[in-house]
Amino acid sequence: MHGGNWASFKQKTGHMPLDFSANISPLGVPESVRAAVIRAVSEADRYPDPSCSELRTVIGKTEQVPPEYILCGNGAADLIWRITAVCRNGSALLPVPAFSEYRTALQANGFGIRTYAMRESDQFRLTADFLPVLKAFVNELPETKRGIVFLTEPGNPAGVTTEQELLLQILDICSRRGVIVVVDECFLDFLDDPESHTLKRQLNVYHNLLILRAMTKIYAVAGIRLGYCFCSDGELLVDIQNHGQPWNVSHLAQRAGAAAAADTAYRDAVRALIRVERKKLQTGLRALGCRVIPGEANYLLFHSDRLLTRPLWERGILIRDCRDYEGLEEGWYRTAVRTHEENRILLHALTEIYR
Amino acid sequence: MHGGNWASFKQKTGHMPLDFSANISPLGVPESVRAAVIRAVSEADRYPDPSCSELRTVIGKTEQVPPEYILCGNGAADLIWRITAVCRNGSALLPVPAFSEYRTALQANGFGIRTYAMRESDQFRLTADFLPVLKAFVNELPETKRGIVFLTEPGNPAGVTTEQELLLQILDICSRRGVIVVVDECFLDFLDDPESHTLKRQLNVYHNLLILRAMTKIYAVAGIRLGYCFCSDGELLVDIQNHGQPWNVSHLAQRAGAAAAADTAYRDAVRALIRVERKKLQTGLRALGCRVIPGEANYLLFHSDRLLTRPLWERGILIRDCRDYEGLEEGWYRTAVRTHEENRILLHALTEIYR
Repeated sequence: MHGGNWASFKQKTGHMPLDFSANISPLGVPESVRAAVIRAVSEADRYPDPSCSELRTVIGKTEQVPPEYILCGNGAADLIWRITAVCRNGSALLPVPAFSEYRTALQANGFGIRTYAMRESDQFRLTADFLPVLKAFVNELPETKRGIVFLTEPGNPAGVTTEQELLLQILDICSRRGVIVVVDECFLDFLDDPESHTLKRQLNVYHNLLILRAMTKIYAVAGIRLGYCFCSDGELLVDIQNHGQPWNVSHLAQRAGAAAAADTAYRDAVRALIRVERKKLQTGLRALGCRVIPGEANYLLFHSDRLLTRPLWERGILIRDCRDYEGLEEGWYRTAVRTHEENRILLHALTEIYR
Repeated sequence: MHGGNWASFKQKTGHMPLDFSANISPLGVPESVRAAVIRAVSEADRYPDPSCSELRTVIGKTEQVPPEYILCGNGAADLIWRITAVCRNGSALLPVPAFSEYRTALQANGFGIRTYAMRESDQFRLTADFLPVLKAFVNELPETKRGIVFLTEPGNPAGVTTEQELLLQILDICSRRGVIVVVDECFLDFLDDPESHTLKRQLNVYHNLLILRAMTKIYAVAGIRLGYCFCSDGELLVDIQNHGQPWNVSHLAQRAGAAAAADTAYRDAVRALIRVERKKLQTGLRALGCRVIPGEANYLLFHSDRLLTRPLWERGILIRDCRDYEGLEEGWYRTAVRTHEENRILLHALTEIYR
């Protein structure tokens, strides 16, 4: 079960839902991206450039990261699968709740998985309590196995951020034994101040740091598929690239990505909208009596004592029922933050259900 | 080393080559596909439908195969990687020369690989000599290992077809021990009479048969990425789907594929063009003194006693130097069959080199 399953809604009802179950920019595909795809489609008879040279140059410039530290993928999910394939049969430590694709990919690649439960009392935030668990994991790692830790910044589904100091301690502990720390920053761009939360300036210090990014969410190109990762360990990047086909990133995605990365105006507009609407939506949900985690990204995790999935579906609305998240029981839901009008429709529907 | 590496040419020279190294329809992206992509791009803010429902329905109708026998992928290469991941650490039998991605994927997934060398004296065609090798492979397969055989129909790089009777014998021998027979029909649509060569009507008889197809080549959408496979073993298809991310086929590719599959006029035009031009190109190559394998698809494998790659590159032309194909030594080249004018340019350049 994943968010964004509009297809099954459409199949059953014949029309499209209002989709709060996927955390995508509500401003739609940027005009710059639309134009780039239309220009690129006539060139799409050629194979895509496996090295994504031009795209990596643009991303490198925008993100101030050397192009040789960048590897692109068919969405961040493609990279998650390749990374786990590289470290096959290793050991993983997984703070939960977390994006289910980490576990799916780890299991399919024969990993032993240890989980660490984040708590509602900490707003599902990673705290210093994690460190002894991490130390034990690192110390008990057999010589023959690769170790990997998956962190998410900001967290998903809770949307909260981690203290930088704690993240650096985690990197330190892991680097001693070559344990790879994957930090999924796919929703980082939705934070009010992404630059104060990204770990990208640590890339030169920690060669075991692998940062995941996605164009998919902030630039509303989920259907075009484009993710990338940063890492200063060139051999690891080559390994990841070689654990799958060479033509994974389509020519359309490469052109779309180059246009998107340069479109800072669109990104800023999304961020400004989300900052305002997130607060309103949070206030609205609390007014209904829901327990809302004070997320900092473009989605909110909340607990309701009413069953919501079905009555919302009947009103043409999808939200993410989080009961299948490890560490969350029935009653937890995640909703995307969308436009003012759309959020109003959601709150109105919830008010009806609560009445 | 693969064909279609226009990006490295462009990086070094600043302009695009005339590319005979990738076997793609020379008629460019179909207008129907271009229109479908342009229509779809505004919808690309949603995640793609992981089940590719609408696309599978269209393909099923065009190909007369039940939609539940169809699985789509991010190009056929994506499916090759997933299939080998499902049967990880198995044993493979590989007639060579063959598409190098089979071996790359098999090796990355821990397979033991046995090869069978097809011979120039057989025009690199699979013959009955293969059967004792296959029988030995099947009989010696350990109980604990999955067996897999990769065949290509028509062959690549040679472009020749296999006797149907021989293919059925291979399927019979393999089905006794549950060995999966992957038959890569990615270039089948370029044959003069594809229907007499496809194995798709055997799907109900052989549950161990897995047929690979690609939209990439015949519909000139290599840069959009779309492949699919046919199999009557539903559990195997689910396994293949679950050995990678769920959103591998982009929304644009799904829409492009549905438009392409319905565009039989484009496909017929490509086939008619190739049928005529292949003969002319073959005649032209033979007139230069090259040994040409009488391929039946949209490419020709030939042997030249001159070094061709560099002098053609200097004239802005790429062909496929086949020396890295297992079982082919220096001197073998593969060229795509393109439009009359383009083929004329190639032959003219070769004439200069031979002079």
